[in-house]
Amino acid sequence: MFEVIGERINTSRKLVQAAVAERDAEYIINDVKKQQKVGASFIDVNAGARIGHEEEDMRWLLDTIQPFCAIPLALDSPDPAVLEMAFSMVDQTPMVNSISLEKERFDAMMPFLDGKECKIIALCMDDAGMPESSKDILGRAKNLIKELNGVGIITANIYVDPLVQPISTNSNKGIMVLDAVRAIKAEFPEVHITGGLSNISYGLPQRHIINRTFVALMMDAGMDSAIIDPLDKKIMATIQTADMLLGNDQFCMEYLKGVRSGTIES
Amino acid sequence: MFEVIGERINTSRKLVQAAVAERDAEYIINDVKKQQKVGASFIDVNAGARIGHEEEDMRWLLDTIQPFCAIPLALDSPDPAVLEMAFSMVDQTPMVNSISLEKERFDAMMPFLDGKECKIIALCMDDAGMPESSKDILGRAKNLIKELNGVGIITANIYVDPLVQPISTNSNKGIMVLDAVRAIKAEFPEVHITGGLSNISYGLPQRHIINRTFVALMMDAGMDSAIIDPLDKKIMATIQTADMLLGNDQFCMEYLKGVRSGTIES
Repeated sequence: MFEVIGERINTSRKLVQAAVAERDAEYIINDVKKQQKVGASFIDVNAGARIGHEEEDMRWLLDTIQPFCAIPLALDSPDPAVLEMAFSMVDQTPMVNSISLEKERFDAMMPFLDGKECKIIALCMDDAGMPESSKDILGRAKNLIKELNGVGIITANIYVDPLVQPISTNSNKGIMVLDAVRAIKAEFPEVHITGGLSNISYGLPQRHIINRTFVALMMDAGMDSAIIDPLDKKIMATIQTADMLLGNDQFCMEYLKGVRSGTIES
Repeated sequence: MFEVIGERINTSRKLVQAAVAERDAEYIINDVKKQQKVGASFIDVNAGARIGHEEEDMRWLLDTIQPFCAIPLALDSPDPAVLEMAFSMVDQTPMVNSISLEKERFDAMMPFLDGKECKIIALCMDDAGMPESSKDILGRAKNLIKELNGVGIITANIYVDPLVQPISTNSNKGIMVLDAVRAIKAEFPEVHITGGLSNISYGLPQRHIINRTFVALMMDAGMDSAIIDPLDKKIMATIQTADMLLGNDQFCMEYLKGVRSGTIES
């Protein structure tokens, strides 16, 4: 099953930031309920945008969200102290967003992760920057998987983010990441592939058709999760349709349910 | 470059049938011009629907279309006599639509094709009916390529149609044809893959999103041509977008041109 990590509860979004600043629980709860209703598998919670308030904002968000949230959370912070606090508050095994190979982040995160039971998003980023080739992405993924396995996180709990890059900078950027995903899945069938998608269309007009077409291609390559806005009906409809086309929807039941409930329109 | 075989000039379409019956050249010419304008690579011409009139209708259509058509035609008939006449009339090397492994059709078409210079659509159909598995599709494609090579048609002029089947009948039907296309292209890198797409969504609601999502997946697998209505803006926009994402559009030039000319909308 394709897993959607709902990205809406993020204080870098203006309305969320205002709601958090005003401790407007109703707004936040409503948003979370909507994300759940349309099929999110995780609710990402990021309280990083109000400088100096991350820890208290994260605590308030978790207190606010959890009584109304049946699905697990993705704890989204670069700060192990915030994550440690958040981790102690969650009711269900969470996802942690994220670790990378950038030395500072890696060194801070590894002791935090050691021995924890969680899912983890592993970004194929290192101190040299974004990956430059499929081989590069695969190499970084291998490294991350090896290191995470080493602190007790099993491969099936790792969500590799190959880092989608704008095709406007190089017409090879689509193929590069598609090939990388195929290679990672060939070598690690149990690993998950996730990530944001909209970077692919950065700098181009009519971004939505690019994002929609790309998610289908990525799913075919092996992506089985994405960090997106689950209230974006068109992306969600494409994901559900591609899932059916790729053989994951027996008797087209989920697709038909989506059409009946109005979530799938042409 | 992805090649669109424009399917509109077909007397099974009501308005076309009326135009042909009334010898309304303007209607036909206009339609052909529109198909060319939006990027068709071939104009399919099928005069089969008015029983007893196929040969004269085909002759009139070719006479009518050719002075206004800069792109080659796809001569669409099961009748070698009609094809022979049509073949003698065309200005540019045509495509022939089609041959299959059904004994009657195969035996009729092979002598016609022997030694001719043309492109040919090869349907993976035999007397047992539609293919039942990827292996089945690959086996039929191999057979067709071997036989066509034997009468002098080079692989690069063969357009294999793997026969898309409705996913409503079996949730495996998408994967089956995607896998088959990958296998055919792996074994015959020069062969083209074409076909209709809309069968995939037969029997399901909101067919358009299924067809659009599926064409992107098929292109990723190796489909480089399709028999479609080039005036269907959404399918055409998806094809152009997928072509870009798959690395076939340097500097996104064609995509940007499409957006500027209004053919690509989200």
